[in-house]
Amino acid sequence: MSIKLYGYWRSSASYRVRIALNLKAIAYQYVPVHLVKDGGEQHQTSYLGLNPAELVPTLVDEDEDIILNQSLAIIEYLDEKYSSGIKLLPEHKLQRARVRALAQDIAADIQPLANLRVLQHLEAQYKVDAEGKAVWSRHWIEKGFGAIEKRLQNTAGKYCFGFDLSLADVCLVPQIYNAVRFGVDMDAFPLIKRIHENCNKLPEFVAALPENQPDAQ
Amino acid sequence: MSIKLYGYWRSSASYRVRIALNLKAIAYQYVPVHLVKDGGEQHQTSYLGLNPAELVPTLVDEDEDIILNQSLAIIEYLDEKYSSGIKLLPEHKLQRARVRALAQDIAADIQPLANLRVLQHLEAQYKVDAEGKAVWSRHWIEKGFGAIEKRLQNTAGKYCFGFDLSLADVCLVPQIYNAVRFGVDMDAFPLIKRIHENCNKLPEFVAALPENQPDAQ
Repeated sequence: MSIKLYGYWRSSASYRVRIALNLKAIAYQYVPVHLVKDGGEQHQTSYLGLNPAELVPTLVDEDEDIILNQSLAIIEYLDEKYSSGIKLLPEHKLQRARVRALAQDIAADIQPLANLRVLQHLEAQYKVDAEGKAVWSRHWIEKGFGAIEKRLQNTAGKYCFGFDLSLADVCLVPQIYNAVRFGVDMDAFPLIKRIHENCNKLPEFVAALPENQPDAQ
Repeated sequence: MSIKLYGYWRSSASYRVRIALNLKAIAYQYVPVHLVKDGGEQHQTSYLGLNPAELVPTLVDEDEDIILNQSLAIIEYLDEKYSSGIKLLPEHKLQRARVRALAQDIAADIQPLANLRVLQHLEAQYKVDAEGKAVWSRHWIEKGFGAIEKRLQNTAGKYCFGFDLSLADVCLVPQIYNAVRFGVDMDAFPLIKRIHENCNKLPEFVAALPENQPDAQ
């Protein structure tokens, strides 16, 4: 097995890569990096050599001698290298651009604002408590989902873009997992909710669920 | 001219797209969207039809009848469609993956944390003042630049990846503009500083500078 994924069960960026690996039918070794225990294993010297940003996920492909961070870059790399499974980026350049934009609506404009390090910083800097952190997270998720719900009115079928799974679904599903965790009312986003249900009927999505990882608590 | 860019002079995501358009030698019409005046033109109905996320930039390509958001998706689209100017994504898949990852280190892990809407929200929610907002911004920029500086030790030449410009430089330069604005000491990041100086010797970067836009104040 040439592929190793360093991740954390509840990290939504790790969750994206797990879904993608499953949809591409790529076997991989999962190496848990505990983001909380002992102050966070992502800050330890042994991990910094792999990823100086002290974030997960990191993918190592021993075949190619490449160490890669950033979930979207990882997924596009896997999609370009492996013809197995589902093509996650469409062949047509306009469609590919739209898929990338929706994926980035999540990966750049929602997820980074409500991830662990930001919530820890809000607590340390401004004494924001658990409920305050949930309010902060919901604010950005609901703002982002509001815009995505409108975009999906023009593109959605069974999935974000018609009836083919894509990188957009791979990003959307983990963000919904986070949304539910922070108490977002998903009934406000009926298209997103329906796509979520459709995706989670597929074994590739189920196997990638946080609670189905060996490091789940 | 089939390309219209809706942007704001000081938005670093808009700045990225301006650099890319210049490096690709693509003529375009620039349509300013004032992010502050009258509560922000990005929130007005006339703009929401183009971009329900109420963010800039948005690119309209009338040739293809496409309206596209997300600066990285826009730039990859332009790079795939137009063979003119410089190729911003390398041909080799490993190199392309590395370029995308560094671009996303900026576009997902730095910029979204210190942009206008987040700073406005910190002020509204936690009464963070101007100096507090600068402290917050510097925190995320310095953290991100620290990791990028380490990565560049393995990849940098004149630019982020050897001697060819790429999407990584297109993202890095606007982030440095922001860093300087918030008072980050760039001497702590000598490789980033050198790449910045090299890029800003090129007319394509100079023409894209915030202060050289018609809506600059």
